[in-house]
Amino acid sequence: MNSPKTAITPTRNEDYPEWYQQVIKAADLAENSPVRGCMVIKPWGYGIWENIQRILNDKFKKTGHKNAYFPLFIPKSFLEKEAEHVEGFAKECAIVTHHRLEEVKEGQAADGVGKKGQLAPAGELEEPLVVRPTSETIIGAMFAKWVKSYRDLPLLINQWANVVRWEMRTRLFLRTTEFLWQEGHTVHATSEDAMVETKQMLDIYADFAENYMAMPVIKGEKTALERFPGAVNTYCIESMMQDRKALQAGTSHFLGQNFARSSQIKYLNAEDKEEYAWTTSWGVSTRLIGALIMTHSDDNGLILPPAIAPAQVVIIPIIRKDSDQSTVMTYCQNLKNDLEKVSYMEQPICVEIDDKPGNSGEKSWSWIKKGIPIRLEVGMRDISEQSVFMGRRDKEPRDKVSIKRDVLVSTITGLLTEIQSILLSRAKEFQKKHTVKIDSYDELKAFFTPKNTAKPEIHGGFALCHLKDSVEVEEKLKQDLNLTVRCVPLDPIKEDGKCLMTGEASKQRVILAKSY
Amino acid sequence: MNSPKTAITPTRNEDYPEWYQQVIKAADLAENSPVRGCMVIKPWGYGIWENIQRILNDKFKKTGHKNAYFPLFIPKSFLEKEAEHVEGFAKECAIVTHHRLEEVKEGQAADGVGKKGQLAPAGELEEPLVVRPTSETIIGAMFAKWVKSYRDLPLLINQWANVVRWEMRTRLFLRTTEFLWQEGHTVHATSEDAMVETKQMLDIYADFAENYMAMPVIKGEKTALERFPGAVNTYCIESMMQDRKALQAGTSHFLGQNFARSSQIKYLNAEDKEEYAWTTSWGVSTRLIGALIMTHSDDNGLILPPAIAPAQVVIIPIIRKDSDQSTVMTYCQNLKNDLEKVSYMEQPICVEIDDKPGNSGEKSWSWIKKGIPIRLEVGMRDISEQSVFMGRRDKEPRDKVSIKRDVLVSTITGLLTEIQSILLSRAKEFQKKHTVKIDSYDELKAFFTPKNTAKPEIHGGFALCHLKDSVEVEEKLKQDLNLTVRCVPLDPIKEDGKCLMTGEASKQRVILAKSY
Repeated sequence: MNSPKTAITPTRNEDYPEWYQQVIKAADLAENSPVRGCMVIKPWGYGIWENIQRILNDKFKKTGHKNAYFPLFIPKSFLEKEAEHVEGFAKECAIVTHHRLEEVKEGQAADGVGKKGQLAPAGELEEPLVVRPTSETIIGAMFAKWVKSYRDLPLLINQWANVVRWEMRTRLFLRTTEFLWQEGHTVHATSEDAMVETKQMLDIYADFAENYMAMPVIKGEKTALERFPGAVNTYCIESMMQDRKALQAGTSHFLGQNFARSSQIKYLNAEDKEEYAWTTSWGVSTRLIGALIMTHSDDNGLILPPAIAPAQVVIIPIIRKDSDQSTVMTYCQNLKNDLEKVSYMEQPICVEIDDKPGNSGEKSWSWIKKGIPIRLEVGMRDISEQSVFMGRRDKEPRDKVSIKRDVLVSTITGLLTEIQSILLSRAKEFQKKHTVKIDSYDELKAFFTPKNTAKPEIHGGFALCHLKDSVEVEEKLKQDLNLTVRCVPLDPIKEDGKCLMTGEASKQRVILAKSY
Repeated sequence: MNSPKTAITPTRNEDYPEWYQQVIKAADLAENSPVRGCMVIKPWGYGIWENIQRILNDKFKKTGHKNAYFPLFIPKSFLEKEAEHVEGFAKECAIVTHHRLEEVKEGQAADGVGKKGQLAPAGELEEPLVVRPTSETIIGAMFAKWVKSYRDLPLLINQWANVVRWEMRTRLFLRTTEFLWQEGHTVHATSEDAMVETKQMLDIYADFAENYMAMPVIKGEKTALERFPGAVNTYCIESMMQDRKALQAGTSHFLGQNFARSSQIKYLNAEDKEEYAWTTSWGVSTRLIGALIMTHSDDNGLILPPAIAPAQVVIIPIIRKDSDQSTVMTYCQNLKNDLEKVSYMEQPICVEIDDKPGNSGEKSWSWIKKGIPIRLEVGMRDISEQSVFMGRRDKEPRDKVSIKRDVLVSTITGLLTEIQSILLSRAKEFQKKHTVKIDSYDELKAFFTPKNTAKPEIHGGFALCHLKDSVEVEEKLKQDLNLTVRCVPLDPIKEDGKCLMTGEASKQRVILAKSY
């Protein structure tokens, strides 16, 4: 058997979904748990999430938001209040119905299923509780108590939490039953203030995606069909993955007065008149990690932008004789210390020393698969020359260079900036290459019909089309070609044209794509 | 009606439990939610938790631990594996039995309870899921897959998460159905390594309690009766609240090979022989906030140690005429900027400007009740003298002084250090004063029997006693005097003596107290 040419098999072109799973496994980011649809996020994956949290949290606080924490459970009756919201969320949730497990004594199991010695649910609740799929209703109930006058507004709250949506088909990071996210919930005195907030948070997400995750996104508005249940407007950032499918990476909702009415969030205005408030909500989740993987990784595994990597640099000591051990380790530790004194994007650079037992070539490959931006190998010869042997994840694995250790320390920030920028450029180029204007249904169908049946996973990309804003038209496109309107771009592609489905006049193009 | 002399009514002496609730309310830390037993942690309370997280997280990482995330749900069968653990935890948990809510159509509700249009649980699960009360079993199942050889050890993992224990009687922060915590879970090759880890984490908790929360604690070991279900040894830090009851503020468990056996965590040792691993677990929770409140607060509300306060300083602009507005606000903003350039305990000082509409006296009181360490009032007269008017939370509310603004900026770190140290000294003195050696049952009974029935909440404190290590003896003390052995101190009070219950010889005193 020939050894594979790439670290990840299958490659992206051979089997994209399986490649995705293998990249996660090879990078040791996460794995499935014994609980259906729930994942375990392993330290290297959780390290990415910690950076996402740190960076966004900082941006939220700088724009005046405060963190708080609301209950995991939502009484069933709360979900019955906002009709559209129920319709969207109440369907597939985890329902808590009991508050005790009791040992089954012979013939005692309520449902007849348990065996003696096993445990069976007992202590039935008067009202079932739903494990939060999102927190608008429970937070709304609290906000109704907190908001009394216009002086209490705006109320700007964010929560970092776990949420649960019972998913039938799950994929690590992209769609899991339990996931981690942040959900911002704000209350405003006027429609204008709420809209400014909604768009501000969308801008924060877009800035984060592009400048930290090196992931180009298109800001846009969802059509009625794709809107958050209960929202007036839903805005989103959409990104193109390497299989040319779209991934919705974050959403920001203008909820109008809908939730204020169902939760009774009212305030006295300056004229002492009671009014319903205006609310927003916005969120991103661990799904971003899925987006990160599919934006940058290659057939050798994960590639991490330096700004989001749990560590930017790994040092691999090369020790050929026991007597070299102390010299090499001291050199590595000093190098680590010096590098960690340097900042990159306002954070100290983080350096790992991989001194686990094992072959240095294998270790180097394990870090390539983990996507670390810079690998340094240090042996006695390097030390004698006061240099290190450096590999960059944005280059070919074999493309390594010797660099003076002092030069490295003094230029490391520039190096990381360069890698970050190269990854963003590559992703932008990819997106641009696979975004086309399409003006007829036949052309659209051809664009999204894989020509090569050996590669059924390769689809067209983003189609910029004129399309009528109509649930019917969109449902037909979904059914026939599995396409959805990803968004109506906020940076509008204004052109006079005709809807490619109905022939009706249109002033602006939308983005059609297959999606995650 | 006379206005109360203190900001909080009732006072500590009048009604301690009610005082506790009122302090939380006045400081706007948290409140009860519509979900039984679940609290909402409001921004000022969550800010304390964020500091607890930041400081401990840093200590965990410096000792080699990595964060990860495990599922919220635990299959029922997992809890059936470790007999003692089930006994301790399976009893009062939230049980998920269904994964869907369906609209009730006439006569369709499975349980006959739902009305038409309401939602009823549907989609019954094959195996009920327990919302984690703690994660030993699910993490154990993953560790069994991750650990293969001695080279994989030690495995040092921590998780920040929410957990649920169905509590009948709840109190904000101290005992809530859902709470936030961190749980460390580690795997080691030897019993010695696991014990070193267990004690290292106990030391980290004790250091954190004393040097950040300004809360003196006693490190000790639990007796068999109070041990964590399934543990071989449980170590704890115990602190004395102002009603002289003990509060367990953190625990660290040496689990021996018990969980390794039930979860099958095995490794190949250097001689290629398979062995069961040794595990530990350790945790602190939002309960620490309850401990913080009850250690330092007074009859004017919360008192926050600077090291854990969400903000160390508030600036209250005093604006008597509209024309002063811009001068005063500019001065305040510049002062804030200058103070925030200064560090205290390796963090930039955090300053709030309270420019909300309202009376400055009322605002000042609201910050006293919130426990902020330093209040600054700034009006035109202060500005003309280049000074500020300063109040300190560790002093009387009226005890305010004028201080030159440049002197304040240059001495702020020292001021905060002083306040932090005063709070710790006071708490230490209080604990010392109410800790006594007791050598007979009658004396013990007298010590713990409130003499003044108008103040039934005032109890004795910590009784240092000789007591036989016996479940029977302890259960009798619990029943008769509501006392428990809080711990056997690790810094031992070694003396020859006799058990005050059985008269048997004893070499070391234990701590007996009433507790939370």
